[in-house]
Amino acid sequence: HMRVTRALRPIFLVDCRYCGAVRRNLRQIFQSLPPFIDILLLLLFFMVIFAILGFCLFSTNISDPYFSTLENSMVSLFVLLTTANFPDVMMPSYSKNRWSCVFFIVYLSIELYFIMNLLLAVVFDTFNDVEKMKFKSLLLHKRSAIDHAFQLLVSRQRPMGVSLKQFDGLMRFYRPRMSARDRFLTYKALNTSGSPMLRAVAYVTYVLYKTRRSGEHWFDDLPHTAYIILKGINLLVKSKAFQYTMYVVVAINGVWILVETYTLDSGFSWSRLVPWNYIVFLTIYGVEVLLKISGLGPLAYFSSGWNLFDFSVTVFAFLGLIALAFNMEPFYFIVVLRPLQLLRLFKIKKRYRNVLDTMFELFPRMASLGLTLIIFYYSFAIVGMEFFANVVYPDCCKNSTVADSYKQTNVTHGNKTVLEGGYYYLNNFNNILSSFVTLFELTVVNNWYITMEGVTSMTSHWSRLYFMTFYIVTMVVMTIIVAFILDAFVFRMNYSRKNREMLDNPQDENGIVFEVEVTRDEALSTLEFYKQTCPGQSSLSSLVGVVQSEQHSPLLYQGRRSRTKCDLSMKMYEEEMQEWYFEYSRGNLPQPDQNQEPDLDSPTSNPPFVPAPQLNSHAGHYSIN
Amino acid sequence: HMRVTRALRPIFLVDCRYCGAVRRNLRQIFQSLPPFIDILLLLLFFMVIFAILGFCLFSTNISDPYFSTLENSMVSLFVLLTTANFPDVMMPSYSKNRWSCVFFIVYLSIELYFIMNLLLAVVFDTFNDVEKMKFKSLLLHKRSAIDHAFQLLVSRQRPMGVSLKQFDGLMRFYRPRMSARDRFLTYKALNTSGSPMLRAVAYVTYVLYKTRRSGEHWFDDLPHTAYIILKGINLLVKSKAFQYTMYVVVAINGVWILVETYTLDSGFSWSRLVPWNYIVFLTIYGVEVLLKISGLGPLAYFSSGWNLFDFSVTVFAFLGLIALAFNMEPFYFIVVLRPLQLLRLFKIKKRYRNVLDTMFELFPRMASLGLTLIIFYYSFAIVGMEFFANVVYPDCCKNSTVADSYKQTNVTHGNKTVLEGGYYYLNNFNNILSSFVTLFELTVVNNWYITMEGVTSMTSHWSRLYFMTFYIVTMVVMTIIVAFILDAFVFRMNYSRKNREMLDNPQDENGIVFEVEVTRDEALSTLEFYKQTCPGQSSLSSLVGVVQSEQHSPLLYQGRRSRTKCDLSMKMYEEEMQEWYFEYSRGNLPQPDQNQEPDLDSPTSNPPFVPAPQLNSHAGHYSIN
Repeated sequence: HMRVTRALRPIFLVDCRYCGAVRRNLRQIFQSLPPFIDILLLLLFFMVIFAILGFCLFSTNISDPYFSTLENSMVSLFVLLTTANFPDVMMPSYSKNRWSCVFFIVYLSIELYFIMNLLLAVVFDTFNDVEKMKFKSLLLHKRSAIDHAFQLLVSRQRPMGVSLKQFDGLMRFYRPRMSARDRFLTYKALNTSGSPMLRAVAYVTYVLYKTRRSGEHWFDDLPHTAYIILKGINLLVKSKAFQYTMYVVVAINGVWILVETYTLDSGFSWSRLVPWNYIVFLTIYGVEVLLKISGLGPLAYFSSGWNLFDFSVTVFAFLGLIALAFNMEPFYFIVVLRPLQLLRLFKIKKRYRNVLDTMFELFPRMASLGLTLIIFYYSFAIVGMEFFANVVYPDCCKNSTVADSYKQTNVTHGNKTVLEGGYYYLNNFNNILSSFVTLFELTVVNNWYITMEGVTSMTSHWSRLYFMTFYIVTMVVMTIIVAFILDAFVFRMNYSRKNREMLDNPQDENGIVFEVEVTRDEALSTLEFYKQTCPGQSSLSSLVGVVQSEQHSPLLYQGRRSRTKCDLSMKMYEEEMQEWYFEYSRGNLPQPDQNQEPDLDSPTSNPPFVPAPQLNSHAGHYSIN
Repeated sequence: HMRVTRALRPIFLVDCRYCGAVRRNLRQIFQSLPPFIDILLLLLFFMVIFAILGFCLFSTNISDPYFSTLENSMVSLFVLLTTANFPDVMMPSYSKNRWSCVFFIVYLSIELYFIMNLLLAVVFDTFNDVEKMKFKSLLLHKRSAIDHAFQLLVSRQRPMGVSLKQFDGLMRFYRPRMSARDRFLTYKALNTSGSPMLRAVAYVTYVLYKTRRSGEHWFDDLPHTAYIILKGINLLVKSKAFQYTMYVVVAINGVWILVETYTLDSGFSWSRLVPWNYIVFLTIYGVEVLLKISGLGPLAYFSSGWNLFDFSVTVFAFLGLIALAFNMEPFYFIVVLRPLQLLRLFKIKKRYRNVLDTMFELFPRMASLGLTLIIFYYSFAIVGMEFFANVVYPDCCKNSTVADSYKQTNVTHGNKTVLEGGYYYLNNFNNILSSFVTLFELTVVNNWYITMEGVTSMTSHWSRLYFMTFYIVTMVVMTIIVAFILDAFVFRMNYSRKNREMLDNPQDENGIVFEVEVTRDEALSTLEFYKQTCPGQSSLSSLVGVVQSEQHSPLLYQGRRSRTKCDLSMKMYEEEMQEWYFEYSRGNLPQPDQNQEPDLDSPTSNPPFVPAPQLNSHAGHYSIN
């Protein structure tokens, strides 16, 4: 008996706490389904019409296996929809009558170039609309939560704002590991523009997470000689000249690798190679990494994604060198990762920086889409393993049209005899890993009909249903992925067009920056306050540091937070948001959706955040009632 | 010697008067190029890195021809970018080590699923932006032209408006074949909301082109008996019951054709077949067409695209029947066009109507994009014919990896012996038609490397440059086409979301409707006026008809104009237009672009039109100064 219910297992997986994003994706897919199915019907309708036409026109040609029966005709045109059998499907009729190409050109123009794009347009449009509605609902619910939180936090004595005492209490509960200094700074950042600001209490807890005194170096407290040296290194690694020198080195390395690889013959062995240039370049990169770490301080160095990338590539290259030195066969692949260094060259141009930053911002969402795809893969893999395990093997499928792709022959290379030929028997459903690879190949679509026909010839022609269903399901998911990437990038580009001056500010490219000025007196009084409320807490030491500093001018603190999709949305829907808030202020909160998950788009799954200056500009519009 | 300069001939073709749309497309392609090239570089960069990695990892496998040299490695990965050689390119290494699939999965995920979509996003974004700027510039230039025309037309006596005399003079010059009645009605339509309206003079000339008295039937003047019969037919063909009966008939016909075709065996002959059901259905369709023509009148019948479609399919079916009756072999293909009738079923659902209407609206633009593509094809075909004419033939390319696709073998079917096997020698550059088909196959991308490798093996490996260049050029054009379709449909869907109530009005679905009421007195005075200004003109008869009608209530005339992209843009950019007009009123006319062509998007190449109600609502914003 067949145990296909195992294919439904992922449902339990999806229903766990960590799969909120996957559930969201699935909901989005289901929301896009109705228009999708409409267009799909149009697609299938044309397919059937052309199948009938094709059967009538070409079935008289006995050397044309593609249109010999109506079923074959439909299958051929379904596969042609994916272009996988073009131009082979055309060739027998084309060789008989040159004008038969018109049939195929018309079919492909209508189906592939028009309706398939229409499908993308429809999904893209639905996607856009759903995203906007989701953002609206989320925003208004957030607003209502803030109002509620404010009502709970506000004291009778100060009905218009939250005092440090209440705020500090909240933060100690909500974020226990935050230091007293950061709590105080967060409070100050929120409080700068008067009491209404503090309505955003619940959403700004991460603002000053990475608080640091501006202009502060990690080596400030070292002895003078070390300070001078490190200050010099700091200036050096921050200089343009140093950066561009490194770009030149990377470029030379790239050309070198290319030329070196080009001159290699295919029979070389890695262990024989003496990679002296490898050692030279690696030394340069190593020195660069050491200089940067010592000049910027480890914390500042590793807070940049690009530096992390540099560091890991360099470490990998070192591991590769060690592998070479000790002749460790399985680690040779590390050696060939060297060219990844060249990716650094793309930092030079702004467009690439934008693209790669956006990629980084979108990564969590992409990962959840990938996970969704893998869940579909899993279900199909289970079904495939139940029905098709061990049905294909070398030299099988002799009576099918794709027999060549499964045929094995002995080929002699020099003095060795190797089995060669069609490797398609490897695309099987024998175990879960093979199934995944096979399904990936079906996703890529090219030559997928070979796998389908091979399996079909060994089982029944109902097997095609499995492959066609899989094609349609992946088409839905892939279209969603394309629509998502399209939407995200068009959004980002519109955004950066709207705020050109803002993004030109290099400091802002890495995220949203807050600045708080603290005077000595304020720091002292806060220290006093903390000593009263929670004496003996170790986290006070960070606050003591502020007071002990010798400077008498106010200290400037900077908080940084990476920008999330939510921030972009806030900026883009600025005008609509006014309307929505107006609706909201009249009590029209959208019905809370039971299935609505919080939108955790930011990499560290911060609670979605209302940036202070943004909120500030809106502050006047809400009445506290 | 090579006569490749012939490939540049299309430049002269493009530079003619009728190719304005093609020039616009070319300009759009060039405007999209800079960001396109940026992303292309990213694509090629990853390709080179992976080529080096692939060469290092897989060149030790002697049975893997895809990565044996660095050049092979790059070509393989370029082809893999188009997925055309997947999964074959993976198979040799996959059979040696199952984990090598990771290399290909990572490569395809980055290149195909990420960067290629990014490319689409970038082009789509640029496209959007360019479209909007074009519309803005066009709108403001139109406005300035209207102002100028108004200054010329207005008389000293009436500085605030244009009199019928001036307007009539303009129209007689601008549109000589328009009847006096239509000129008068156009004037009235423009004049309904006071003098500012007439500023739009130059752009509304087509409004009442298809003017007809509302409620008027073509058979009104016939004798009473005929009138009664035709009135009955008119009511019948307009009834829902008749429509749905026809849908049911079409659906039954569809099922019938499907079942009939399914039960045919492949050796049938068309002339033996007695298609009695064919005759039955055709009779029904014929009767329907006759009823509709007589009920609605030929003019009204043929003014609808759907009716035109019905009519031509039915006529084709009749021709097919005649071909069957007289055994005319070459016309059999007409018989198989029958299933096209089924397309009518898609009229039932609103989404399909929307889609097909949009398709119709976009058709001229699509055609010009197609023409642009054909011009590229022509250039490449000429180059291809110069270099590759007659290089491939049956059984050639024996020393290449794709020899199988060119091999010919004798196969016996029953008592006939036929040459069969690889038909790829048909994909050649021997003449211009074959070249076009070959280039279309390269555009579809699947298996394109077989053609490339075949030609390469018979010439030099520099031939690959031709094929790769062609791929990149078509990629640009196809991306533009996809972006265009995407843009048009998303635009249309947004539009219909914005104006749901408007599109729900069925009368408005076919275009923009104007209504003018004319009283008998007005008609009489106008007739008087025309008799004075241009006596003896035959076109007056249409106006006389108005006066002679027996009804004394005001006559209602309806004008109809099909909706163009320009109308949609007007609605969509409503808010931005206010700003643009404001800028314009302060004298900031965008610099006239020397290369700017008028945007002839509408099917009949009407001058772009400012719809009256639209203009009306804006009228208050312009000051006449």
